[in-house]
Amino acid sequence: MTYTKDYPRIVIVGAGFAGLYAAKELRRARGLKTVIDRTNHHLFQPLLYQVATATLSPADIAQPIRAILRGAKNFQIFLSDVEEIDIEGRQVRLSCARTFSYDYLILATGAQHSYFDHPEWEEVAPGLKNLSDAIAIRNRFLRAFEKADQAVDIDEIRALTTFVIVGGGPTGVELAGSMMEIARNTIADEFRNIDPRLSRVILLEAASEILPAYPQQLRVKTVQMLQRIGVEVRTLAKVTAIDAHGVSIGDAKISTRNVLWAAGVRANSLGRQLGVPLDRAGRVKVGPDLSIPSHPEVFVVGDLATVVDAKGQQVPGIAPAAIQMGRYVARQIIREANQGVLAGQLERSSFIYSDKGKLATIGRASAVAQIGGIRASGWFAWILWLLVHIAFLIGFRNKLMVMISWAWSYLTWGRGARLITESPNDKSSADSRQTA
Amino acid sequence: MTYTKDYPRIVIVGAGFAGLYAAKELRRARGLKTVIDRTNHHLFQPLLYQVATATLSPADIAQPIRAILRGAKNFQIFLSDVEEIDIEGRQVRLSCARTFSYDYLILATGAQHSYFDHPEWEEVAPGLKNLSDAIAIRNRFLRAFEKADQAVDIDEIRALTTFVIVGGGPTGVELAGSMMEIARNTIADEFRNIDPRLSRVILLEAASEILPAYPQQLRVKTVQMLQRIGVEVRTLAKVTAIDAHGVSIGDAKISTRNVLWAAGVRANSLGRQLGVPLDRAGRVKVGPDLSIPSHPEVFVVGDLATVVDAKGQQVPGIAPAAIQMGRYVARQIIREANQGVLAGQLERSSFIYSDKGKLATIGRASAVAQIGGIRASGWFAWILWLLVHIAFLIGFRNKLMVMISWAWSYLTWGRGARLITESPNDKSSADSRQTA
Repeated sequence: MTYTKDYPRIVIVGAGFAGLYAAKELRRARGLKTVIDRTNHHLFQPLLYQVATATLSPADIAQPIRAILRGAKNFQIFLSDVEEIDIEGRQVRLSCARTFSYDYLILATGAQHSYFDHPEWEEVAPGLKNLSDAIAIRNRFLRAFEKADQAVDIDEIRALTTFVIVGGGPTGVELAGSMMEIARNTIADEFRNIDPRLSRVILLEAASEILPAYPQQLRVKTVQMLQRIGVEVRTLAKVTAIDAHGVSIGDAKISTRNVLWAAGVRANSLGRQLGVPLDRAGRVKVGPDLSIPSHPEVFVVGDLATVVDAKGQQVPGIAPAAIQMGRYVARQIIREANQGVLAGQLERSSFIYSDKGKLATIGRASAVAQIGGIRASGWFAWILWLLVHIAFLIGFRNKLMVMISWAWSYLTWGRGARLITESPNDKSSADSRQTA
Repeated sequence: MTYTKDYPRIVIVGAGFAGLYAAKELRRARGLKTVIDRTNHHLFQPLLYQVATATLSPADIAQPIRAILRGAKNFQIFLSDVEEIDIEGRQVRLSCARTFSYDYLILATGAQHSYFDHPEWEEVAPGLKNLSDAIAIRNRFLRAFEKADQAVDIDEIRALTTFVIVGGGPTGVELAGSMMEIARNTIADEFRNIDPRLSRVILLEAASEILPAYPQQLRVKTVQMLQRIGVEVRTLAKVTAIDAHGVSIGDAKISTRNVLWAAGVRANSLGRQLGVPLDRAGRVKVGPDLSIPSHPEVFVVGDLATVVDAKGQQVPGIAPAAIQMGRYVARQIIREANQGVLAGQLERSSFIYSDKGKLATIGRASAVAQIGGIRASGWFAWILWLLVHIAFLIGFRNKLMVMISWAWSYLTWGRGARLITESPNDKSSADSRQTA
């Protein structure tokens, strides 16, 4: 044998789609497998916007990593941040000061928001990447109506009930549709001093069209569906300033107290420690086998990596691609471990991304879908969207809970998780008035 | 008419059981009704311990106040803290600086933890009163096992997997039973470096018996059931010190990193502003009609009040009593408003508490119940407990979700909400070790 011990030590950092599916595939592998994540759960990110818009509870789209890997042999799970990677020494140092040596390293720490050259926008325009973000957005969104109901100044009420979403990708589209529906339907009759139906939801996109990764026909359909439910879609709208009072697009200013950021992501900073070339978004440029140059034992997968596959496709930053990458690297490791050779001593087949299609919801019973050559929109695409998301959710309980939540929301127009959980409202937007 | 306007202005502060059921009863009353709460939801407190022990999600036991009162005429709902009550001027001033005048005031702001003369214990021994508390306890409880799995010192591991609950009332009993079950069943096989089955759960009670409000026979049963699942019950155990390293009972010290406080409550401080006599726990001493001396227009209900009813019963601080108090005062107001007289000008019947019984769960398929002359324990009491709690939960969706969560937990021994949601673990309890 050629390992330090008589089995390979495999360390996986990050239990998102790429890391988790690598770990699941490695259940049947020899060796000691260590999964390191900063949270105790795998998060089903495609439904995170539904936590932000009060339809689902955090637990519905999260599953404990330990529960997923229960019964799998030779796994250890570590709740920690990673502080440092020593590529030459083949060690990972955790923020709890412990160090793991590895024979194989799978890095899958994903991406976070990027505000480009405006880090100061983060404070006023939160993004949506994890459960804390989702709860913070939910609190802000629901509290805006409470504040508007207490306000007396009409301009203040307008600013409080204007919601601006920056970025016309799938997340922006889904947030916009969902927020408009809540304002127009769910809470429409619940306020005495304001009419939530008069709320504005504005979706801003800097490019000439929203959903750039989708076919032209579906982009047009999406705009039509968004406009039908009342969302204002503005393209070629490059945001130049954001503050607590509004958003500027060049000279034009939208007065709002609620800006959400869905415009850009950048890879996790761990990639920088590898000393290998990165792209502009900080993603690691990996080889055709998803390993880094000169280190066949170090794989980078999911949103942390950028790769053009053997068919010449730029692999997109979406869940199905991450799952495929995770499974692919696990299989390379298993093959080498089974033959007892060191990393990279067998020739590896190149990773090929299999494009299963794209799906995005716009709102109640409307979605767009592209699957192979088939393009669909409206009700049929929505049913497809429901089925695919239920199928990929992990855990029977979560599938059941999400299905029931959706059925209930569909039948009643309600939202099941309309909680404001932070401390009581600050005094910024309220003012003194004698009330009968 | 005798009001300032030609209808009474009714202000309700607090939308717990007492305040909410008063508001629901007042749906059919003339007048403008204002409900003020610091959160946007009514919380079903009897199941709060199940959020703290990862069985239920916050949204399952909370319902937006606006949704509950949707469609009710002449209601306004205000999300705010109350800053000041001017009894003589008949005004309530909110923390958002707005002021409401009233013809009737219903105060129902409930109770919070009391650490008696040791406010410094709050930091190390959190209590369970609201959703933030429950999430904080859940995070601490689940994180303790993660830290233990990462620790190397055996004493440290023991301290991390020892859970001490101070206070043997229903909340303490329910927390203890639930935590023991999670350690022994739910997560028993999920750790590599520790065996959660070896965890200790210790329930401390200063008095000579736990569940003092229950009949002797059921108290004995409860201790037996707790011991059968592994909980250590210690009575006559008066806690003399709590710090980050453990709990002292006189000279004896229990080394633990996890102390929960379920020992005492004190009424919300708003009661002190009324200038009327309070009891030792800060509760307002109200008259037989639940109003305060000389102010028939000011009612105090729920856990904020202390009252011996016309039958000589001390009304207990539990949900059914709060509901009855809320409904009773609403009916007094409706009767006076219908006749167009000022508060207190009609003779009021005295409040009489109707004791429907007591219920507490110990764990899986075991509970104790006293209903009228009937005393039950074990499986039958547990079914009764389930049915009563489902019946009183507000909202069809919540009833359904809670039933499914319970059925799933019963069948799989799992817990549906095992999320650690705070930031990654601190470095306090981990240490450096080279791991293969």
